[in-house]
Amino acid sequence: MTIKEILKFFDAQDVLLLTTMNGDIPETRAMNNIRNPKMARHLKKYFAENDRILITTNTGSDKVAQVHKNPTANIYVFDKSFNGLLLNGKIRKITDRETIEALWTFSWNMYYPGGRDGGDFTVLEFIPETFKSYKGFGFVKKIGKVE
Amino acid sequence: MTIKEILKFFDAQDVLLLTTMNGDIPETRAMNNIRNPKMARHLKKYFAENDRILITTNTGSDKVAQVHKNPTANIYVFDKSFNGLLLNGKIRKITDRETIEALWTFSWNMYYPGGRDGGDFTVLEFIPETFKSYKGFGFVKKIGKVE
Repeated sequence: MTIKEILKFFDAQDVLLLTTMNGDIPETRAMNNIRNPKMARHLKKYFAENDRILITTNTGSDKVAQVHKNPTANIYVFDKSFNGLLLNGKIRKITDRETIEALWTFSWNMYYPGGRDGGDFTVLEFIPETFKSYKGFGFVKKIGKVE
Repeated sequence: MTIKEILKFFDAQDVLLLTTMNGDIPETRAMNNIRNPKMARHLKKYFAENDRILITTNTGSDKVAQVHKNPTANIYVFDKSFNGLLLNGKIRKITDRETIEALWTFSWNMYYPGGRDGGDFTVLEFIPETFKSYKGFGFVKKIGKVE
């Protein structure tokens, strides 16, 4: 499956489930899917032009500490008919100014004390390596590499 | 937090996210929350009387093979306001006839070839050990043991 085929389904979901590793223990949490224009309208153009899966979060969050120690992670998304897409891969912390500035919007000041450059705003990139897609509950449709 | 406090929030959610380990790689998928009477009406009485987190699935599914090798798992549930509850613990396969018979309903024949005793119906029990609760996206409210 190409990244474009994956993103077609991915971008339509409001919420993503991110799982990172706390030692041997997986931790899962729901997050805004900022690739979906409904969830972050100001990023519609950016993500139309960039096939990247990016996550914005607080620097002090457990997930940032966890991926620093172990970049292994998954992201799972599903729709109302329980078609699902599991992506397994790695997470890296984004440090280039260009990406950070492209994502930031003024209204996020309420979530990040000090704003974009205040130290609490972190951008993570998820690099998908493999996928497993589900057609409804429990029916695996396809497994493969993300190309 | 006691198991009863946990189940109060848990039982109100339609869907649960189950994460199991495929080697070092976490795999997540959505499943029916059969503790919620909306999702499995015939089990309303059973779960009102039993504070157990049970999952019914196909014996041949990846998750059954994965928990056989490594019982470490988590279950995450969240509501429409993104209040979330992460439970970490272990999964064991249920073999006692009493539990299997209590859960089975005729209409599940369509999902399990051969029915209850046909070999493809498996019941798993998730034993929660710790929890992390979230108030909205990313705000950890409480962490602790499940008592």
